[in-house]
Amino acid sequence: MELAFEKLGGLIPGIVQDHRTGEVLMLGYLNSEALGRTQETGEVHFYSRSRRRLWKKGESSGHVLRVREVRLDCDADALLLLVEPVGPGVCHEGYRSCFFQQLDTEGATRVIAERSFVPGEVYGDKGPQ
Amino acid sequence: MELAFEKLGGLIPGIVQDHRTGEVLMLGYLNSEALGRTQETGEVHFYSRSRRRLWKKGESSGHVLRVREVRLDCDADALLLLVEPVGPGVCHEGYRSCFFQQLDTEGATRVIAERSFVPGEVYGDKGPQ
Repeated sequence: MELAFEKLGGLIPGIVQDHRTGEVLMLGYLNSEALGRTQETGEVHFYSRSRRRLWKKGESSGHVLRVREVRLDCDADALLLLVEPVGPGVCHEGYRSCFFQQLDTEGATRVIAERSFVPGEVYGDKGPQ
Repeated sequence: MELAFEKLGGLIPGIVQDHRTGEVLMLGYLNSEALGRTQETGEVHFYSRSRRRLWKKGESSGHVLRVREVRLDCDADALLLLVEPVGPGVCHEGYRSCFFQQLDTEGATRVIAERSFVPGEVYGDKGPQ
């Protein structure tokens, strides 16, 4: 099946889910190269829209995502990456999941998770990756 | 917090997850109006890119998604919609989840779920919605 990369200018969204707990950890974007590298290496690669380059998740922090299974949706325009996360969390703000805030009906946010690591100790001066 | 609708031309991806089972059911896109309607009504609304209009999930099938919680990611550019799905499935092809295919390292797909309903009986002649 051909993946519908063209719908988002060469990118396809990839939902990252912990294969054991079912927790949704983050959403990233893959181009064709990122998907190829993910499949070849067994570790999740994205295309960074802000840095405009291929990006291995965890390349600086060591918090890589080992791929257990890749699923494709009915329209071939979204991926579900079932992973085994290495390390205490995927979020550059120090949480296990990037979805650590609840959004209420008034548009206000509330943090609903505990930090699982200290970002400064992991990322140093290089900034989160 | 301001949601980053501008990154995708006015849309933000919304991951739909069953709040009880943790199963990821689908990914859709919300514009500001769709998010407002979702929050006001407690039922998931998307913006359909192909039909270019607001779209209540389940408007024709009756398989609506009742919102239990909305989460926002660290960059405010992705939503996680925790829902109670009404009906046997969200996928227009008759599956509980749109992610019913596994993608292998060669790019081949394999159906890994059983159909949970017969699309023709639900959608009739109007096509899937």
